[in-house]
Amino acid sequence: MASTCSESPFFSSSSSSRHRWNYDVFLSFRGKDTRKNFTDHLYTALIQAGIHTFRDDNELPRGEEISPQLVKAIEGSRISIVVFSKQYASSRWCLDELVKIVECRQKIDQVVLPIFYDTEPSDVRKQTGSYAKAFDEHEEHFKEEMEKVNKWRGALAEAGNLSGWGLNNEANGYEAEFIKRIVSDVACKLGNKTLHVAKHPVGIYSRVQGIISLLKGAKPDVGIVGIHGIAGIGKTTIAKAVLTNFIWI
Amino acid sequence: MASTCSESPFFSSSSSSRHRWNYDVFLSFRGKDTRKNFTDHLYTALIQAGIHTFRDDNELPRGEEISPQLVKAIEGSRISIVVFSKQYASSRWCLDELVKIVECRQKIDQVVLPIFYDTEPSDVRKQTGSYAKAFDEHEEHFKEEMEKVNKWRGALAEAGNLSGWGLNNEANGYEAEFIKRIVSDVACKLGNKTLHVAKHPVGIYSRVQGIISLLKGAKPDVGIVGIHGIAGIGKTTIAKAVLTNFIWI
Repeated sequence: MASTCSESPFFSSSSSSRHRWNYDVFLSFRGKDTRKNFTDHLYTALIQAGIHTFRDDNELPRGEEISPQLVKAIEGSRISIVVFSKQYASSRWCLDELVKIVECRQKIDQVVLPIFYDTEPSDVRKQTGSYAKAFDEHEEHFKEEMEKVNKWRGALAEAGNLSGWGLNNEANGYEAEFIKRIVSDVACKLGNKTLHVAKHPVGIYSRVQGIISLLKGAKPDVGIVGIHGIAGIGKTTIAKAVLTNFIWI
Repeated sequence: MASTCSESPFFSSSSSSRHRWNYDVFLSFRGKDTRKNFTDHLYTALIQAGIHTFRDDNELPRGEEISPQLVKAIEGSRISIVVFSKQYASSRWCLDELVKIVECRQKIDQVVLPIFYDTEPSDVRKQTGSYAKAFDEHEEHFKEEMEKVNKWRGALAEAGNLSGWGLNNEANGYEAEFIKRIVSDVACKLGNKTLHVAKHPVGIYSRVQGIISLLKGAKPDVGIVGIHGIAGIGKTTIAKAVLTNFIWI
């Protein structure tokens, strides 16, 4: 995926105002494949970049259905990133999650970004390679529930067709650089709202509000407000806080 | 390995002044196992922490001997970190590298820190498990050079006995946290000399030298120098630069 941060963030005001988001990113992955390695590094890098990310920490076997907490997390996320590892499709819970994600894409304009981690998009899309083997087993095991299996196939076909990132095609397969690019792209898509401001800034609220009201009250063709003060007083901090707030107001 | 940063850095003035170091850390790893994943993340984290690290970027097949450049890098490193992955011992180049590392441990007080990545220290030490299989092949292939094979065994026995980090025993196997702890331990062992100062600081040299000469000239029981100035003028930067310089002077 080419990084195109020069373009505007892709969340239109209509889609972002229609829906209340709890997370920037929901991570979908098969625990056994990538929980403690690739997805752990990706999650940590997203969090470090200030991107509010949900990952399911539950390592225990799951029940029949995906939990209401997980459904709520998916529905409350601006972006879903799906880590398509070799055995992703062998997990029925991953596939149920993916069906929900694709549904959110259609209904609430959630953005879905696939990562092809040691997989090819065509294997995901057409359920070939290791995905074919997984579906042979699903069709055997769920032969009374072919509607469910077809839904899984449909979700894979749709998600595998989306623009995303392929480990083998980027950064020569080096994971640290690959993750750096993903985080940068995601930050960009979120409208660069990830500038870091201190966790508990003190005393800047009134100044931030003051600048925002100046910007809002500005004439249509004027949108610049200068901030001056001695070095170290917090000009940059205020500017970053204004930007962070202003994009989503 | 318990993090014990309260203790002094373990480089005594005698060992650090005897030898000229070019790197803080030399990374030894089997490329096929971890070059693009674990070791890439570790390398990136070390560099980000300001720890000057060497890794062999060469993905091409190697010649008979390890290259002079590699030997020079090992000899010039304060610490060698050895990533013992499942197939580390199947590479004769890794084993040659390890022999050199253990030699540097004995001769120039290089610190050697093993990482047991999906391996157990006892397998490394006694060449059991996947390491046994590798040595069956080496003994077949190098039956005319048993001295070399025995040197490899000796190096593994010594390195496998050292205090290091085991992925399965720390951070519940989560790699990002595991790497964070390693970097923190290494920074600590290097005497916390990894405080980040701007790459090209301007105009602080004379001030840093001034403070260092004050500290050196201080009475034996007094070692405090105050730095004052308005916010943002660079007090912290100077203090960090003093610390970075002072430890190794």
